[in-house]
Amino acid sequence: MLELDQHPSGRHFLQIPGPSPVPDRILRAMSLPTIDHRGPEFGELGLKVLGGIRKIFQTQHPVIIYPASGTGAWEAALSNTLSPGDSVLMFETGHFATLWKQMALRLGLEPEFLSLPASQSWRHGVQPQLIEARLQEDREHRIKAVCVVHNETSTGVTSDISAVRRAIDAADHPALLLVDTISGLASADYRHDEWGVDVSVSGSQKGLMLPPGISFNALSPKAIEASQRSTMPRGFWAWDEILTANANGYWPYTPNTNLLYGLGEALDMLLGEGLEQVFARHERWGEGVRRAVNAWGLEIQCQEPALYSPVLTGVVTPEGIDADEVRRTIYDRFDLSLGTGLGKAKGRMFRIGHLGDCNDLTLIATLGGCEAGLKLCGVELFGSGMQAALDFFADNPAPGTPAARKLAADDPTGQPQADAARA
Amino acid sequence: MLELDQHPSGRHFLQIPGPSPVPDRILRAMSLPTIDHRGPEFGELGLKVLGGIRKIFQTQHPVIIYPASGTGAWEAALSNTLSPGDSVLMFETGHFATLWKQMALRLGLEPEFLSLPASQSWRHGVQPQLIEARLQEDREHRIKAVCVVHNETSTGVTSDISAVRRAIDAADHPALLLVDTISGLASADYRHDEWGVDVSVSGSQKGLMLPPGISFNALSPKAIEASQRSTMPRGFWAWDEILTANANGYWPYTPNTNLLYGLGEALDMLLGEGLEQVFARHERWGEGVRRAVNAWGLEIQCQEPALYSPVLTGVVTPEGIDADEVRRTIYDRFDLSLGTGLGKAKGRMFRIGHLGDCNDLTLIATLGGCEAGLKLCGVELFGSGMQAALDFFADNPAPGTPAARKLAADDPTGQPQADAARA
Amino acid sequence: MLELDQHPSGRHFLQIPGPSPVPDRILRAMSLPTIDHRGPEFGELGLKVLGGIRKIFQTQHPVIIYPASGTGAWEAALSNTLSPGDSVLMFETGHFATLWKQMALRLGLEPEFLSLPASQSWRHGVQPQLIEARLQEDREHRIKAVCVVHNETSTGVTSDISAVRRAIDAADHPALLLVDTISGLASADYRHDEWGVDVSVSGSQKGLMLPPGISFNALSPKAIEASQRSTMPRGFWAWDEILTANANGYWPYTPNTNLLYGLGEALDMLLGEGLEQVFARHERWGEGVRRAVNAWGLEIQCQEPALYSPVLTGVVTPEGIDADEVRRTIYDRFDLSLGTGLGKAKGRMFRIGHLGDCNDLTLIATLGGCEAGLKLCGVELFGSGMQAALDFFADNPAPGTPAARKLAADDPTGQPQADAARA
Amino acid sequence: MLELDQHPSGRHFLQIPGPSPVPDRILRAMSLPTIDHRGPEFGELGLKVLGGIRKIFQTQHPVIIYPASGTGAWEAALSNTLSPGDSVLMFETGHFATLWKQMALRLGLEPEFLSLPASQSWRHGVQPQLIEARLQEDREHRIKAVCVVHNETSTGVTSDISAVRRAIDAADHPALLLVDTISGLASADYRHDEWGVDVSVSGSQKGLMLPPGISFNALSPKAIEASQRSTMPRGFWAWDEILTANANGYWPYTPNTNLLYGLGEALDMLLGEGLEQVFARHERWGEGVRRAVNAWGLEIQCQEPALYSPVLTGVVTPEGIDADEVRRTIYDRFDLSLGTGLGKAKGRMFRIGHLGDCNDLTLIATLGGCEAGLKLCGVELFGSGMQAALDFFADNPAPGTPAARKLAADDPTGQPQADAARA
Repeated sequence: MLELDQHPSGRHFLQIPGPSPVPDRILRAMSLPTIDHRGPEFGELGLKVLGGIRKIFQTQHPVIIYPASGTGAWEAALSNTLSPGDSVLMFETGHFATLWKQMALRLGLEPEFLSLPASQSWRHGVQPQLIEARLQEDREHRIKAVCVVHNETSTGVTSDISAVRRAIDAADHPALLLVDTISGLASADYRHDEWGVDVSVSGSQKGLMLPPGISFNALSPKAIEASQRSTMPRGFWAWDEILTANANGYWPYTPNTNLLYGLGEALDMLLGEGLEQVFARHERWGEGVRRAVNAWGLEIQCQEPALYSPVLTGVVTPEGIDADEVRRTIYDRFDLSLGTGLGKAKGRMFRIGHLGDCNDLTLIATLGGCEAGLKLCGVELFGSGMQAALDFFADNPAPGTPAARKLAADDPTGQPQADAARA
Repeated sequence: MLELDQHPSGRHFLQIPGPSPVPDRILRAMSLPTIDHRGPEFGELGLKVLGGIRKIFQTQHPVIIYPASGTGAWEAALSNTLSPGDSVLMFETGHFATLWKQMALRLGLEPEFLSLPASQSWRHGVQPQLIEARLQEDREHRIKAVCVVHNETSTGVTSDISAVRRAIDAADHPALLLVDTISGLASADYRHDEWGVDVSVSGSQKGLMLPPGISFNALSPKAIEASQRSTMPRGFWAWDEILTANANGYWPYTPNTNLLYGLGEALDMLLGEGLEQVFARHERWGEGVRRAVNAWGLEIQCQEPALYSPVLTGVVTPEGIDADEVRRTIYDRFDLSLGTGLGKAKGRMFRIGHLGDCNDLTLIATLGGCEAGLKLCGVELFGSGMQAALDFFADNPAPGTPAARKLAADDPTGQPQADAARA
Repeated sequence: MLELDQHPSGRHFLQIPGPSPVPDRILRAMSLPTIDHRGPEFGELGLKVLGGIRKIFQTQHPVIIYPASGTGAWEAALSNTLSPGDSVLMFETGHFATLWKQMALRLGLEPEFLSLPASQSWRHGVQPQLIEARLQEDREHRIKAVCVVHNETSTGVTSDISAVRRAIDAADHPALLLVDTISGLASADYRHDEWGVDVSVSGSQKGLMLPPGISFNALSPKAIEASQRSTMPRGFWAWDEILTANANGYWPYTPNTNLLYGLGEALDMLLGEGLEQVFARHERWGEGVRRAVNAWGLEIQCQEPALYSPVLTGVVTPEGIDADEVRRTIYDRFDLSLGTGLGKAKGRMFRIGHLGDCNDLTLIATLGGCEAGLKLCGVELFGSGMQAALDFFADNPAPGTPAARKLAADDPTGQPQADAARA
Repeated sequence: MLELDQHPSGRHFLQIPGPSPVPDRILRAMSLPTIDHRGPEFGELGLKVLGGIRKIFQTQHPVIIYPASGTGAWEAALSNTLSPGDSVLMFETGHFATLWKQMALRLGLEPEFLSLPASQSWRHGVQPQLIEARLQEDREHRIKAVCVVHNETSTGVTSDISAVRRAIDAADHPALLLVDTISGLASADYRHDEWGVDVSVSGSQKGLMLPPGISFNALSPKAIEASQRSTMPRGFWAWDEILTANANGYWPYTPNTNLLYGLGEALDMLLGEGLEQVFARHERWGEGVRRAVNAWGLEIQCQEPALYSPVLTGVVTPEGIDADEVRRTIYDRFDLSLGTGLGKAKGRMFRIGHLGDCNDLTLIATLGGCEAGLKLCGVELFGSGMQAALDFFADNPAPGTPAARKLAADDPTGQPQADAARA
């Protein structure tokens, strides 16, 4: 048996923004025996997960489930809807937006990459007005798709997708809207249909709390139509055969049996709790973590409070402090993994994930590890972030819990403080 | 928790030719907690599995591990080495060869599909002399690759790949040799380097005894060179970035963490047992099952004894008997899944898998279920196949076991009967 | 991680009469995290299992659950109801009856051990008329308890407990009736209340399909009354404190948390299937196995067809054949464990368990292993037992399955053959 | 599948002083398939665990492993060595000492219970001078055994067992020394042989990190001798048959198979880490937790710093604050279980376990939950205990870790602070 943690005792704290900590309940489901992917039980499982995942995307339309990790679903979104040489408009929210652009290049597309000036770059969301302006200019409709990242995992900024839709509509432009919500789905509110998204791309290892290995394309009728005209060569990613086979709960090729067991369990957990509750849970955790960063006197990477991510928080280390050295110290001393700074942010920030199998005390432990590690690396902190978060969690019971109901009953006019803080 | 078996008691017998029954030891390894795919423990795991899988392919060259199921690795082999419009020579061994050809078409290649006449089709292996003849004709070297299936899962025929290599060499043709050994690897002998294969394609859910979700491309230097010239658009499948990241045990995108745990365990099991032993084990099982089919008086789909598959056996049902009705009866009555007839063989045969977490008695149970189910469906059998197989297993201890050593000591001149029977 | 099976591949066949093969579903439940045995969730679990286990014993009265293996529950039954020097009447059905008698001696009781003559000993059930006669003689009521074994695991004889009750009543004797149904419960029909049993003793590792470690005392009001007068020193086994704590689902000392999770799951499985069905399932398996023994031309240890055990079958080996040598051969060659001959039966018989996580094909495999092993040890068999069992299973679908319902609909007057064979 | 935690997300924090949180590695080992307890693999397992457990008790003599929970091992120690009516000298360290005394009464022994005056009771360890004085008086040697608790789980006081041995020797008294180290073993230093203990009693669910269900008696030659003369009736607990069967790794009755798998894994973990390291780990955690309690300005139940338990810390709540109300609040709001005040301490204290599958951040989380819960219940705290513990953990790396080695290299004269604080 593998040794996956070189610390002597206790459970590893995996607080990176994905892969997120997987609930035991899901690991246990994944260990059920593999079955015949053409047998009767499999068809039932297939229909169950295909139905459930639509609710997660908040869509009435089909969702494709790939037996492949998230990067594959990026390729699938592009290769099913576009043709070699097509122009696509993308927006540089951070590292993952950049990687998606590189993939578009590899596939022979012509991406145009909108960015903010260097001083603001990677610290804001998608700018709908820039998109609208660019589409207005595109009188000949050479741009075939607008591609944006919903929750930019490298920065902790959650863009307003509905505003992007309005920008496209305002420009009266026929471009498809393709959205990467790999790290947003099932943690942050996401509405495929209501927001008019044509292809939503996601993966299993974030809000769905599964190990990596499954990814998704949620489709619109317009996207399906586009796929019938697109000429990009595609086999594995092609929607058509999958859609046909999915009608009965099967796949045209061998699906990811045991990860689908995990998906079935994740759907039971998330839909059982209710999406509203799930989103509120992550919002509250995000607020607690940001209070900690503020108490330390450190900067949050995201500079738009309205776009703070409920999934992760990017913490900027002071000048002269190597964020990866901080991460290494914390890992060695406290058995806690944090997300590294990616691309342009390398060494300048670390990322705290607040998603997956997690609760208030997991985050207190995480913030404690960060606080001690920062000090050990010579960072002077203004105050205790761990304490600030604990106070926030104590004063604001998780929505939907008995304590929250009691508090609401005591003070029926009271605004939940988390929302107040954000507003 | 899912209910994956609608029978009241006991363990399901999964005797399809893949996904194969997964040993508990592997399911247990897969349930270890997900870790940071950029952390130190992950790098160690990565190097371990990348090294081990080379031994399984019997190669000194790199093996790509994809977080995607086997069909993806087919696409990867084609898209990394070829360019749109390239001619490829394929051979119709059965359903999977046909599907691979269809994928080549979808990717914009020009497959040429060699076949035997209808009367012999799907019951023989790749015909090297036909390949040699076709390559001889191709003076201009328009054919860029020869693509064949090693172990055709739809028929139970294991082709002689070394002979295909010799045919290409005899024609003095520069075409690449691409081989699908999805269901052959780690059950049937397979030698990537010795047989001069350029890209070997495989998957996790057969001889490696894992759930589906991982697939492989084993490369030759010539294949890597070809990939630098090929112009097929590719992102997810592109070898270059993966090879770079693999040097330290990492991947350019999120790998399939928990399935890789399972792969690590599978490698320990298979290499611990020794590949020789593993191959002999499957050969012996295959012989036992074929003796059963012979005893029943039914036909084996494969008509070339030298190419009988050690992985699965296709059983042809008598005229007028719907093989799927037989399978359904067996499933309902005996909690046993068998492989369906695919494509042209639909309804005319069923397939017995003898791979994965299996032993002599598992196969006796399987043959018992088949025997009873055939009778219940009105098939008259000559004799008891179950009995024939049991006698064979009893008379021929598994190689490498104490009983086999004892028998060999008693009769040092004796040939193992399994080999004799095959010869 | 331990290596618990030294065979190279596949699952071990554990066909001893307990510990029985544990369903994965139960192993998985046992791996849930340990919780506070004084916390709120534990109380719910406690009430659930205390309620469910009553249904299994078919009683309205309390059942004590001990965090100890079955031998402890024997001691508990004696030490709670009796006082040092008390006479108890026991019956020598086999090895386990003998061990219980030895325990009575150790505890300072005076057991009287009724037996049949040596030629018939261990091959019949409890003889109610002998018990009645002995109790008739006991005018002074010096005998305080009658202790019998329901399903004698060493022989495969299931005694008629209801007849023992009638014998005691016919003698108009106040002795308590204590019954060991360790290996009978949840496989063979057992009715604590209807049969007027005062203490029923059982364990987890047989029909309940759990690992060893939990045991039971089902009580009658008369037994509880007796416990208030009995003077045997007792601490751990004392009912009084346990009954008090159980009222809220707790225990006076630390209970067997994770095995209780398994018990909860087992109750869901057994009560979900329905006890009628569970009993019929085991009856049918027993009949199939006995047909095999008959076909081999070997003797069944139990000589009273009406008392054939539905849980296990004792197979007598021919003169000159060491049954343990047969067992060893079968274990080595076929990865199959059978029960050894115990006590007086050492070397003269082996025992086939047909209980736990099992189905028709598991038993066909088991009988195949026995058949081949017997032959390898030089036993000449009349015919194929494996074949006889398979024919029986094929002709007689398991009760409650669709096939059985169909057969019944086709021939509404037909008696199930299994019953016919037994009658 | 059971729902064992009614909180919506994340892992429960089980910080009671046992059952301790079980490492996944052990839960996974327990889920291996049940095997034949008379088969060859079982004998190997038996010898392994019987050998390993001796190292844990630091003894050369036999250790009995019971398939029963800890209370049973108390009874076993008394019933194997003593006879009805024997006097035993016991010391009231707290609730568990009291329960053991009650068991002695139930078994017909005559316990004499030494106590400190009420004002000091339950806040100190065993007083060796009181024991010595009492034994001096006992000229006729009517006292047959001295029974003391090593680590009193109800108070968090770890008595000096070596001093008790010296007291018995000083009185030149032949009484046996029986010690309950149920919650001490494998967390606190414990030396069966060196300290001259005759019977050490322990259980699985504390330092051994297993679920409840296994318990131990470690023996001395003198204890074995005594067992040959003792007349207490005993069956299940009797050492003689177990010692005989253990010689080959077996048990006279069905052992606790799957919990023994867990024990094997626990032994690998603890002996692999090294007992020295294991003890130092718990000492350091204890010191961190006590610093937290001091920082809060609350009282520690144990009033003798030299006897602070490394396993748990009892925290006294201020007058007027119901400790169970605090515990309930913490449980409801923070998914954290703490130990209740037992017996005389009911409502006046709660207990924090620092044992089992645990690390620095787990304890920071625990202290955070306590801190917030105390405040929510209206307790005014002097300062942040969570912060004090974090500072201590940061300044004092765990012994044996790279950070500790580095610190030691930097300051070779430096005393570890933990020891300094305790001295």
